[in-house]
Amino acid sequence: MTPAAPAYRRLSVEERRTQLLDAALGLFAHRAPEDVSLDDVAEAAGVSRPLVYRYFPGGKQQLYEAALRSAADELQQCFDEPREGPLLIRLSRALDRYLAFVDQHDAGFSALLQGGSVVETSRTTAIVDGVRRAAAEHILSHLGVTEPGLRLRMTVRMWITAVEAASLIWLDEGKQPPLDELRDWLVEQFVAVLTVTAARDPQTATLAQALTSPI
Amino acid sequence: MTPAAPAYRRLSVEERRTQLLDAALGLFAHRAPEDVSLDDVAEAAGVSRPLVYRYFPGGKQQLYEAALRSAADELQQCFDEPREGPLLIRLSRALDRYLAFVDQHDAGFSALLQGGSVVETSRTTAIVDGVRRAAAEHILSHLGVTEPGLRLRMTVRMWITAVEAASLIWLDEGKQPPLDELRDWLVEQFVAVLTVTAARDPQTATLAQALTSPI
Repeated sequence: MTPAAPAYRRLSVEERRTQLLDAALGLFAHRAPEDVSLDDVAEAAGVSRPLVYRYFPGGKQQLYEAALRSAADELQQCFDEPREGPLLIRLSRALDRYLAFVDQHDAGFSALLQGGSVVETSRTTAIVDGVRRAAAEHILSHLGVTEPGLRLRMTVRMWITAVEAASLIWLDEGKQPPLDELRDWLVEQFVAVLTVTAARDPQTATLAQALTSPI
Repeated sequence: MTPAAPAYRRLSVEERRTQLLDAALGLFAHRAPEDVSLDDVAEAAGVSRPLVYRYFPGGKQQLYEAALRSAADELQQCFDEPREGPLLIRLSRALDRYLAFVDQHDAGFSALLQGGSVVETSRTTAIVDGVRRAAAEHILSHLGVTEPGLRLRMTVRMWITAVEAASLIWLDEGKQPPLDELRDWLVEQFVAVLTVTAARDPQTATLAQALTSPI
């Protein structure tokens, strides 16, 4: 028989940090930041409060920012999509992953994007803006555009904001309509707003045509 | 000859409050809240710092919230539009007023909506959300809808968020494209997203038809 595992397994610094961040993310995902205490994080990770402080001497603010950065990394991975197949299918798959993320981090996602939280600072805002920028760059790069004009950039960024708004309302409304419908609807809106811009902008017109034709 | 006006004209409490708020609004309109001090406000209003504190004992935070509330009232007045003439013309006129407001309060508008400001709190967020809600209610009421379904509500709110995003990008991009073009483009996007939703939602389908047909 092997002896019982000690209550405090000896972890490397990196492992311990990851364990604490995971515990924090789990809590921040489903509760507003003001409703999560460092005691909660210590309890969820099965460690003492002083240990949490040893890793995050800046307390909750530092832990929140680290957790947010880790969530932002995860969210950005949603946008990684192989460059093969029709563009709208790629967009659908990326949206599927993004919406699954929203589903999994519901309350934390809302708290973060709705602002006014006690832990919101220019740094947390910059992290969220970084995700938005990454999303826009991914879309433009899949569209094969290296020098997007003003009207095209505006259209893509407006649609990304509309997707965020849709995610928040979706959470508010008890996760209705079903994710598959929401995804298809958002893709249709993308085509529609791009088509509107196409009538005002030759660069967008070329893309809109490519978007709706096969491959 | 009339005597020169005294340096400190005797104002009523209400007049003085309005004067201080106007001065604050003028400063907050073109600078981020962190770059405005109470000394600046006192100087702009031509009064002493203690006088500003007498009216706003909570200091900059209180003054900022009061100025924001006053700007929010002004912004909501943009949405007041007589119920006559084609719906899209009414929407254009309301957008004209809204975009003029954005133009006049450029830096303050950006700072407020981009978040992460030191003076942002759950109260300031609530004020901004109130304006968004009012905008959605105005649109639905002009559309003659008293019980909007989920898909229609989502569509209207997504478009309002997209308009906000467009305003911020417009300010970022040195106020390009010209306001008239931006207004027409936003109206076209409204029709486009409503048309997309119409294919999924009978309530929206009826409205989309009424929207594009002459009264």
